[in-house]
Amino acid sequence: MTLPADPAQPALWRASVVTLFPQMFPGPLGLSLAGDALRREVWSLSTQDLREHGLGRHRAVDDTPAGGGPGMVLRADVLAAAIDGASGPDDPRPRLLLSPRGRPLTQARVRDLAAGPGVLLVCGRFEGVDERVIEGRGLEEVSIGDYILSGGELAALVLLDACIRLLPGVMGKDESGTEESFESGLLEYPHYTRPRDWEGRGIPEVLTGGNHKAIAAWRREQSLRLTKARRPDLLDPA
Amino acid sequence: MTLPADPAQPALWRASVVTLFPQMFPGPLGLSLAGDALRREVWSLSTQDLREHGLGRHRAVDDTPAGGGPGMVLRADVLAAAIDGASGPDDPRPRLLLSPRGRPLTQARVRDLAAGPGVLLVCGRFEGVDERVIEGRGLEEVSIGDYILSGGELAALVLLDACIRLLPGVMGKDESGTEESFESGLLEYPHYTRPRDWEGRGIPEVLTGGNHKAIAAWRREQSLRLTKARRPDLLDPA
Repeated sequence: MTLPADPAQPALWRASVVTLFPQMFPGPLGLSLAGDALRREVWSLSTQDLREHGLGRHRAVDDTPAGGGPGMVLRADVLAAAIDGASGPDDPRPRLLLSPRGRPLTQARVRDLAAGPGVLLVCGRFEGVDERVIEGRGLEEVSIGDYILSGGELAALVLLDACIRLLPGVMGKDESGTEESFESGLLEYPHYTRPRDWEGRGIPEVLTGGNHKAIAAWRREQSLRLTKARRPDLLDPA
Repeated sequence: MTLPADPAQPALWRASVVTLFPQMFPGPLGLSLAGDALRREVWSLSTQDLREHGLGRHRAVDDTPAGGGPGMVLRADVLAAAIDGASGPDDPRPRLLLSPRGRPLTQARVRDLAAGPGVLLVCGRFEGVDERVIEGRGLEEVSIGDYILSGGELAALVLLDACIRLLPGVMGKDESGTEESFESGLLEYPHYTRPRDWEGRGIPEVLTGGNHKAIAAWRREQSLRLTKARRPDLLDPA
């Protein structure tokens, strides 16, 4: 489906999710910022139930791995049928498979995805998916981090949340500062707010003095200190 | 609350979550493996609504940052009251604040957390939280990846899912292979399953030949190839 171009209205950002658990969606994204934006039709969500494309009486979606080994593998034919049900060959959206084997998701990539027409997300389960469907349907593997989840669904929700908050009109002024700081390549400096004294702990004097140059210098220094301690990899990328 | 020790029964793994959106929990974790385990009382979940600890008629939880700048900061007093409502000083559980400023979550850390008594998770929102509550309540900042979410809730769900699948009795045989492969320090090799031919694409011959030594060698080679291409950082850690 091609949406009519309306210069006064930004195009709807469309998310489609192929999953064995369509009930997990929108889940947390039905609330808060993302939920408001979904109701205002800033973005849309559709799910494609993998089970509906399963084979035989038990609607099987997986089988044992060729060559042996633990676990079960999602079948190429079943997954391809579900993908084809969610997205035709002319669909301009990137097709991402959430997988610990993928390239790590970054904020830069999130910005690119948010600026595009939407995403088709494929949620893996079990041991993995048949490699041929990755090639045959042009899936790009993306990882949200170096840990293992029970399936791709939570990873899909994370990716969607990260994108949706950047869509035009989603964030208010109160939520808008964080990523600029993150994108400086440093971790954020410490924050303080009222009360001025809490359990004997004060706010650093520089922050209450009104000297904006000194405040900026202090924050920069704190950001550097935190980044050195926690994420030296950000200061010296390989 | 201290649970009675019963050597025949593994201790309940307890998750408590401090959040402005308790309705987001258990969310996706009420389904599939994690949901089954929740109903079987392998783990427990409680939420502490930050708003209930808010101040004044509007139950305010945040205020403007000391020293100026965009966004709003979660107040130390409000957040501390919610944390104290969820967890006493004798609570042995780690207290984690989900934050892009934290140390990255790894599978090794997930294993440690799953082997412990549970977790207290604090979900940030807005620009951040007052630094003093991080110090005063001993919070450790943990990041699930280098991207910005609208709040810590999805990060908390991700961390919980990663831990829960490792609790005794949660995973069946079908789901158990993945992390061993990941923890070898290499990305997983490609998987294949039936049918033998799909859209003209076959299964690599070595996998159907029954030579287990050759299969293991091929898989190792593929893992190395993928890791070199996608995650050279895993091969040569800084």
